[in-house]
Amino acid sequence: MPFRTSRRVEFCDTDMAGIVHFSNFFRYMEFAEQAFLRSMGLSVAWTEGTVRFGFPRVAASCDFTKPVRFEDMLDIAVTVAQIGTKSVTYQFDFACRGESVARGQVSTVCCKKGLDGSLESIEIPSAVRAKLETATEVRS
Amino acid sequence: MPFRTSRRVEFCDTDMAGIVHFSNFFRYMEFAEQAFLRSMGLSVAWTEGTVRFGFPRVAASCDFTKPVRFEDMLDIAVTVAQIGTKSVTYQFDFACRGESVARGQVSTVCCKKGLDGSLESIEIPSAVRAKLETATEVRS
Amino acid sequence: MPFRTSRRVEFCDTDMAGIVHFSNFFRYMEFAEQAFLRSMGLSVAWTEGTVRFGFPRVAASCDFTKPVRFEDMLDIAVTVAQIGTKSVTYQFDFACRGESVARGQVSTVCCKKGLDGSLESIEIPSAVRAKLETATEVRS
Amino acid sequence: MPFRTSRRVEFCDTDMAGIVHFSNFFRYMEFAEQAFLRSMGLSVAWTEGTVRFGFPRVAASCDFTKPVRFEDMLDIAVTVAQIGTKSVTYQFDFACRGESVARGQVSTVCCKKGLDGSLESIEIPSAVRAKLETATEVRS
Repeated sequence: MPFRTSRRVEFCDTDMAGIVHFSNFFRYMEFAEQAFLRSMGLSVAWTEGTVRFGFPRVAASCDFTKPVRFEDMLDIAVTVAQIGTKSVTYQFDFACRGESVARGQVSTVCCKKGLDGSLESIEIPSAVRAKLETATEVRS
Repeated sequence: MPFRTSRRVEFCDTDMAGIVHFSNFFRYMEFAEQAFLRSMGLSVAWTEGTVRFGFPRVAASCDFTKPVRFEDMLDIAVTVAQIGTKSVTYQFDFACRGESVARGQVSTVCCKKGLDGSLESIEIPSAVRAKLETATEVRS
Repeated sequence: MPFRTSRRVEFCDTDMAGIVHFSNFFRYMEFAEQAFLRSMGLSVAWTEGTVRFGFPRVAASCDFTKPVRFEDMLDIAVTVAQIGTKSVTYQFDFACRGESVARGQVSTVCCKKGLDGSLESIEIPSAVRAKLETATEVRS
Repeated sequence: MPFRTSRRVEFCDTDMAGIVHFSNFFRYMEFAEQAFLRSMGLSVAWTEGTVRFGFPRVAASCDFTKPVRFEDMLDIAVTVAQIGTKSVTYQFDFACRGESVARGQVSTVCCKKGLDGSLESIEIPSAVRAKLETATEVRS
């Protein structure tokens, strides 16, 4: 049973074709990822002392099967597709009124932010990894 | 020689990590696609009489190699990766200060919009196809 | 007692200053307006037969008092500030952890959309007006 | 003669009403402000040593006179409406095909960013002020 959340399509998410602009599905995926992480007490961005950590994206993709419109309610299922030493890949399955409308993947890499703004990839902290792995096992 | 355009990163394109939010690369790709089509007198959305046509997206993906920041100037190369009977796939290569920073693909399907708002896939009109094919040949 | 809704700040709403980009407050206002209208069975965009109606914006403003950050939960109070023959003005009061952080207004005009895409202002339909007025009275 | 820049409406800027979503005018204003500042060698965000400075917004407003559509070219005139000790207010006049379509104002306050992410308002640095004042005099 994957983690699930939902989101209603807003007026500003639509374009002149009368449907959700495709770029918003990538925002919806991040929204669902954040809800998934928050459900475990995690986040896509956190601070330890003065050091900032986060999960910048290295790849994202989405297939759009059916158009989605204003006020449609999207059901989003989040699955951890893969956990590497430094990276996590999520899969997102979007449904609307019981029908699949889109499926996407996002790959993120755990990073530490330098004082100069640079991003350095690091191993996923063990406490974060433990929660992600437990969620993955429990849900698969 | 692919079609090239450029775009400067705006403040609102950045996120709290200090880099361009990944979802904006999909907007940048559409921007570059529009510039490419416009250079041939084409568009992603047009009207013939009262009938509306367009190229909704059925798939989009992007790999992000290096972070990009406020006021960085992005060079975007647009290539027609594939033309089918009803579909066109574009590839977008993003560079910043001469270094590759991202590469993405977007697949679009030619559609006619019904009066009820429905979208019906159609063969790419021959005049549109001719221009896309000529551009592809000339540039490859 | 005004209508209230809430919204959590998403990662993509932030900018490189580490706070919510100001333009998103206008999206939040529309989100709250839609929730308010939906609570009465109304919408910012609807169809009767083949005719499309909506409430395009003619003015919008916002004062930003305190910065708001990722994962902050915003409480948004919606008040109908004024109803004219064709127009409605809403006020939105944003609070976070009990403190006021922003206050905005949006003025909308009821419009009918022509087949050519033109927008013609019309009197607010009586059924819509009745609900807006009742809500305003009940809540003031 | 105010500073002028232009911007073409993108597909993703439109909404299901077939016009530019009002929230995008606030992004367009920031775009024009950035172009104006850049023309003087200034920016809305800069670093001196390890200290970060910027101009967060404290108020923004816009009146929308005429709808604007996909591929319309907007001409944007930028005027410095007021310079205070710590704040700058800009006015933006939007025209399309010679007709006024919108007018907005944005008030910004010069801020220093603390290591903890806090924002502290400061007097506008004299070098920045001198350029803003010169531009204002020359152009009025």
